Amino acid sequence: MKFTLHQTDTSTAARAGTLTTDHGEIPTPIFMPVGTIGTVKGVHQSELKEQVKAKIILGNTYHLYLRPGMETMEAAGGLHQFMNWSGPILTDSGGYQVFSLAHRRKIKEEGVTFASHIDGSKHLFSPESSLGIQRSIGADIVMAFDECPPYPSERKYAENSMHLTHRWLERCVAFMKESQPKYGHSQALFPIVQGSSYDDLRRQSCEFIASQDQPGNAIGGLSVGEPIEDMYRIAALCCEVLPKDKPRYLMGVGTPANILECISRGVDMFDCVLPSRNARHGVIYTRQGIINIKNARWRNDFSAIDDSATAAPTSQAHTKAYLHHLFRVNELLGPQIATLHNLAFYLALVTEARERILDGSFSSWKEGAMAGLERKL
Amino acid sequence: MKFTLHQTDTSTAARAGTLTTDHGEIPTPIFMPVGTIGTVKGVHQSELKEQVKAKIILGNTYHLYLRPGMETMEAAGGLHQFMNWSGPILTDSGGYQVFSLAHRRKIKEEGVTFASHIDGSKHLFSPESSLGIQRSIGADIVMAFDECPPYPSERKYAENSMHLTHRWLERCVAFMKESQPKYGHSQALFPIVQGSSYDDLRRQSCEFIASQDQPGNAIGGLSVGEPIEDMYRIAALCCEVLPKDKPRYLMGVGTPANILECISRGVDMFDCVLPSRNARHGVIYTRQGIINIKNARWRNDFSAIDDSATAAPTSQAHTKAYLHHLFRVNELLGPQIATLHNLAFYLALVTEARERILDGSFSSWKEGAMAGLERKL
Ligand SMILES: [Zn+2]
Ligand SMILES: [Zn+2]
Repeated sequence: MKFTLHQTDTSTAARAGTLTTDHGEIPTPIFMPVGTIGTVKGVHQSELKEQVKAKIILGNTYHLYLRPGMETMEAAGGLHQFMNWSGPILTDSGGYQVFSLAHRRKIKEEGVTFASHIDGSKHLFSPESSLGIQRSIGADIVMAFDECPPYPSERKYAENSMHLTHRWLERCVAFMKESQPKYGHSQALFPIVQGSSYDDLRRQSCEFIASQDQPGNAIGGLSVGEPIEDMYRIAALCCEVLPKDKPRYLMGVGTPANILECISRGVDMFDCVLPSRNARHGVIYTRQGIINIKNARWRNDFSAIDDSATAAPTSQAHTKAYLHHLFRVNELLGPQIATLHNLAFYLALVTEARERILDGSFSSWKEGAMAGLERKL
Repeated sequence: MKFTLHQTDTSTAARAGTLTTDHGEIPTPIFMPVGTIGTVKGVHQSELKEQVKAKIILGNTYHLYLRPGMETMEAAGGLHQFMNWSGPILTDSGGYQVFSLAHRRKIKEEGVTFASHIDGSKHLFSPESSLGIQRSIGADIVMAFDECPPYPSERKYAENSMHLTHRWLERCVAFMKESQPKYGHSQALFPIVQGSSYDDLRRQSCEFIASQDQPGNAIGGLSVGEPIEDMYRIAALCCEVLPKDKPRYLMGVGTPANILECISRGVDMFDCVLPSRNARHGVIYTRQGIINIKNARWRNDFSAIDDSATAAPTSQAHTKAYLHHLFRVNELLGPQIATLHNLAFYLALVTEARERILDGSFSSWKEGAMAGLERKL
């Protein structure tokens, strides 16, 4: 994997780059749609490519490990083949879902034991097993196995947890050295910064992570309930410490406004379920503001869902009144159109951010764009 | 509306024709996907055009009348505009749904009073109001308001019901003469043959319907639980009596095998919820047989869902194992892919039937195709 930094903004820390994987190039800053369990909910792979213009998607190790399971995954030839997605894929380590979904979790030095939320069966995720699974899935970017402490966390808990994450990282790095990719394309490990909301722990974690000299770095443990200023402060702090010549991935963030703020602090990569989950509830993002399409005020609004040139073709082709109707009668096509819309909106937003960074107008453009992004229509 | 009959098969009653509407040409025999409430469930309009290759779709008057309602429909400029479908549309009369969905139905000479299944509100559907609503929806083909008797029906009930349908038809014809289309394109009325399973009543009904000299004719009251031989016998009987120079539409039929059998008896047009409803339950039609994709035997089957050249592109692009997985984990994309598949399969089937009728090989081709269509894999 190769990262080329083209431009750093002069008045902010925003960066424009290109990440090159064996499955294609990823312009940064980038947003990665979440394809939880081998599918971005309600979106065909052809639509991801043609309407959303996704350059990389996420898979969730925990979900894919349980179903379809690694026997099927390997028989298919990995996730790219299994789901017929030829672009880059990133997988998380499974740790986050173990903590949010699985039952009877126990953290030990070895790893985390848990019971499946599907059938109660017992499993162990460790640095080695998580990366073994990620080898079987065959993602282009694989994530280190970490513990993501809840917010708020006592300092002592956060510090111990951070050091556990660091020790696990050393095992991840060792495992990656000793093992080989299974499908002929290379896989890059991204370590994850932890340290909760404590600046000194975060700095310490960034330095340790940087010392491991992996192809990219991730900032974890944010967007877990902390005040928004904490998130922005810690993202900025991490970007200052993390090496400039490697991409920085802020995990699980966020709203369109969050993303512009974090780009301006030096983040290159984002993922979040927000645009797709909100779409399924009828929340639609536009540059003019946020629309709740279920609201009766849209019933007879025959303007396009979004007529901007960068909107998804379906958003240009259909009216707000039609989308309102689909949600009102609880038809599948409503969430489908809304999901395409929001994901295409996120991709168009980071694409424009990149153009603005490259032509030097990022800062003023961002200031102009923020009001619309946060307005409720 | 113009119907051109190109060819009648020499050894069966199968016909190949072209029906010309203001929204385009419809090759016959044709299958019409059901777009109940302004959407074919789970299918984008662009996919209907490009993957399914639908030439005409159905809308349900009862559903559209309740939601979005005719105020919104007229403000939108009719259903074509509302749902952004530029091809032909056919609407039913609403009668069938009133009998299957609505509450507190009362049939009178005037029409049928009922309470909405949504909010209990009271409404009257009559020949005039049904066609008034269909004027507001703006379908290219509108259906006469009829009573569809249940199966089995006593002869006396069937006979009275048939005559009521005939009296209502005269009011429908009068209403169409006195009223105008609302959106600048023409609307053709199709009367409906009734008469339950009684051959003489069916013959009598066909003659009455034919005497009204409308642009096309429909056969109703079949596929309501009668033995399959009754359906085939009555379809054949009606096709013998109905005029040859007008299209014949058999309502609510059926399986792929049913469709080929009825094409061979002289039917030109079909609609049915079966392919889309079954798709949502994981039942997939192929020329080799019927697949229940939820069955564990498909878990590691990495062959294409359907690799025939006429299959939906998504069916060629994805494996049975992947579709099995999507259904197993209850993901939206499963029903989406399956629906595209089945609808494209139905359209490809009638398209090939038409080619076979035109080149004189229909009868032998049909015999060869039937075994695969009815086999369970
Ligand atoms: Zn440490
Ligand atoms: Zn009569």
